[in-house]
Amino acid sequence: MADELPQLIEEVVAAEQAENDSASTIEDLIASQDVEEIALLLESLPLDQRLKVWVNVPNRKKLDVLVQMRADPREILIAETDESNWTRIFEDIDAEDLLELADSLPRELLENALSVMDKQQRQYFQNANQYEDEQIGHWMCQDVLVLPSNAKVRDGMRIARREIAVHTDTIFLINRNGQFSEAVKIINLLSSPEHIPLSDIAEETIPTIVVTADCSSSATNVLKSGFAALPVVDEQGKLMGKVDVTTAGDLLQEYYEYQLMASAGMDEDEDLFAPVKKSAKNRALWLGINLLTAFLASWFIGLFEATLQEVVALAVLMPVVASMGGIAGSQTLTLIIRGLALDQVNSANCRALLIKELSVGALNGIVWAIVIGIVAYLWFDSSLIGLVIAVAILMNILSAALAGVIIPVILDKAKLDPALSGSVILTTVTDIVGFVAFLGLGTIFLL
Amino acid sequence: MADELPQLIEEVVAAEQAENDSASTIEDLIASQDVEEIALLLESLPLDQRLKVWVNVPNRKKLDVLVQMRADPREILIAETDESNWTRIFEDIDAEDLLELADSLPRELLENALSVMDKQQRQYFQNANQYEDEQIGHWMCQDVLVLPSNAKVRDGMRIARREIAVHTDTIFLINRNGQFSEAVKIINLLSSPEHIPLSDIAEETIPTIVVTADCSSSATNVLKSGFAALPVVDEQGKLMGKVDVTTAGDLLQEYYEYQLMASAGMDEDEDLFAPVKKSAKNRALWLGINLLTAFLASWFIGLFEATLQEVVALAVLMPVVASMGGIAGSQTLTLIIRGLALDQVNSANCRALLIKELSVGALNGIVWAIVIGIVAYLWFDSSLIGLVIAVAILMNILSAALAGVIIPVILDKAKLDPALSGSVILTTVTDIVGFVAFLGLGTIFLL
Repeated sequence: MADELPQLIEEVVAAEQAENDSASTIEDLIASQDVEEIALLLESLPLDQRLKVWVNVPNRKKLDVLVQMRADPREILIAETDESNWTRIFEDIDAEDLLELADSLPRELLENALSVMDKQQRQYFQNANQYEDEQIGHWMCQDVLVLPSNAKVRDGMRIARREIAVHTDTIFLINRNGQFSEAVKIINLLSSPEHIPLSDIAEETIPTIVVTADCSSSATNVLKSGFAALPVVDEQGKLMGKVDVTTAGDLLQEYYEYQLMASAGMDEDEDLFAPVKKSAKNRALWLGINLLTAFLASWFIGLFEATLQEVVALAVLMPVVASMGGIAGSQTLTLIIRGLALDQVNSANCRALLIKELSVGALNGIVWAIVIGIVAYLWFDSSLIGLVIAVAILMNILSAALAGVIIPVILDKAKLDPALSGSVILTTVTDIVGFVAFLGLGTIFLL
Repeated sequence: MADELPQLIEEVVAAEQAENDSASTIEDLIASQDVEEIALLLESLPLDQRLKVWVNVPNRKKLDVLVQMRADPREILIAETDESNWTRIFEDIDAEDLLELADSLPRELLENALSVMDKQQRQYFQNANQYEDEQIGHWMCQDVLVLPSNAKVRDGMRIARREIAVHTDTIFLINRNGQFSEAVKIINLLSSPEHIPLSDIAEETIPTIVVTADCSSSATNVLKSGFAALPVVDEQGKLMGKVDVTTAGDLLQEYYEYQLMASAGMDEDEDLFAPVKKSAKNRALWLGINLLTAFLASWFIGLFEATLQEVVALAVLMPVVASMGGIAGSQTLTLIIRGLALDQVNSANCRALLIKELSVGALNGIVWAIVIGIVAYLWFDSSLIGLVIAVAILMNILSAALAGVIIPVILDKAKLDPALSGSVILTTVTDIVGFVAFLGLGTIFLL
């Protein structure tokens, strides 16, 4: 599957560049591809080529391709799709498709799509929209195989035969109040007499997910559970839907992509070939925030202008102090961010962690302070410069350990995402501490 | 599940600190926890508390807890486990458990474990070890439900009833040479007459995974497929095993953790509470590499000592130039790394990407060059300093875009992981280009 994507991209680019009757060749190339492959292909193409491929995607496949795509590249295609095509594209749309697309559709297209769905599907769509994007209730599957908790194996067989199309391996049992009670694996029906109660062959323990839980932890729970799907319940235990492994896999992948992109101040929907203006705008905010912190660091350096003029070696060595603090801090930060994501870091062990990270910082700080001190001494033939940079390095690595633990914990408590803003704040701290310690000590000892 | 971890950690820490008969309380606290929760708990505790909890884990649970843990914290517990306990711990060990533990076990314990397994399980273990850690063959499940391709529905029913314990929803059909041909969902047996051939109700398309494929792409394929498990085949198409969604979820999570930790030069097995010396050693290499690049940058700055002495404003503004290049470069780098991971970036679109990123860099470069130039002009009351930094910023952001595309693509071609070393190399480039451009221009225009 995915192994063939590079080849497909190459062939499509080649077909598009071979001017004569290239359109039909593109059509041939994508005809045999499944919708996921076409979605990945479209995302991988520059805008003009992307549009040429898009018009060659059969209308009956367009909906599923759009559903598979990231929001940014998807919106470009939606904007370029001829109005006359939408009736055909929306023909078989269901609530789950529309939930994926909703944020990318202009208002009139959204209403258009809603109007062609039957009442049940509209209800499904509205139910999902009671929950935020980050909550599992928005993305759960509301169609489940349900039986009352006193049902028999034969009832299970009957419903399993009838509802075979629904992707599931489990029947959920509910009590009279609609509360989830137990789950029966359909495969276990095969080896059981028809007259025994389903509860006799129910799974001993199946975890449930609360409908307001966040997507990433819900997804992890599903994948760890060993079940094809877990039941979703509301605060009163009422069965609301299920999350299957495919949905869980998608949610987990999105979460990690979000984290990866957030670390560089970008959105997970960022288009590989976004229009230049849009892309520049997307990234400008992050550059601007970092510029402010860089100017702040510069301002602190400026306090020591007189020192720098006297001892130019300090200016030469400044990046070493800042860099070592930044790296040491980002190591601690990354460790803590991972721990927070898995709920492994909290107030009970935060202090012990801080002590451990400060100890690691002290040890590494001393080692590298000595190494850097010696190099600086040899380079500038001044033991005082060696001493000053050694002490500054130690101070900066220690403060990096402190900041690396405290910043993400505080951000997390304030319900801010440490993966997004943690590293900017950390670097600001380590830059300023590093420059002030180094230049301050330089002012005291070298002037 | 995971929501209760913080509370559990707090309670265990409190129980451990309430000196009197605390041991029994810890025992009570973990008695009702499943092995995954206990594994997460152990990883979250400082070393002394971790060991106190570990002795309270019942021996019958210890194997499963160890299997769930990360390698580093696991190895600490293995080293501290009394020799007399291993017979009990290894009692029910199977090949899959041992594959997880193998790298953490001292040689004699590994042989001990192998000696208690039956011949079939030893064979399973050896089969898996024919493949590298990164290959799916090492982690696939070798137990599959198999029938010849001419089997009937009734054969399917029989095997499904007998092998009910195996976690699967699919029977794989093979031809006489053992090659995979088709897959039948067990749930579809329910609604089919007993005498029809299984191939009549086989799935139209089920993707296969090659046994030497890498783990992360295999995992993604499984989760996207909508099947509970996909068949794994060798180069000749022979059925070798399967990868189910639980394994896929674990592999994907490990891959993303690896990427997250690699970005800070750490191992995904890094222990939250590693012994200080070990932790310091783990991180020292990364600090050392970064120190070399920082000294390299310093050396380039040193070339302009005379200029810095004359125009101290240059020293004050240096961090701004380096920082803007580093941030802009890391944005491009992150985008390309994600594209490479999904096979969306390759030689066919690399040039178009480079042009797009250079355009984005040019636009953002011009905007920020003007902003920074004006601020520098106002700050130091010198239009030449404003001009010099503006040009240096533009040059550095452009070179950052160039490096952000080229470095990961080259690393990927050389089979090196851009997530690990990409950012160090990038920062080195942007630091050096930034400093040389800024101080070089300063030397020309300001002296």
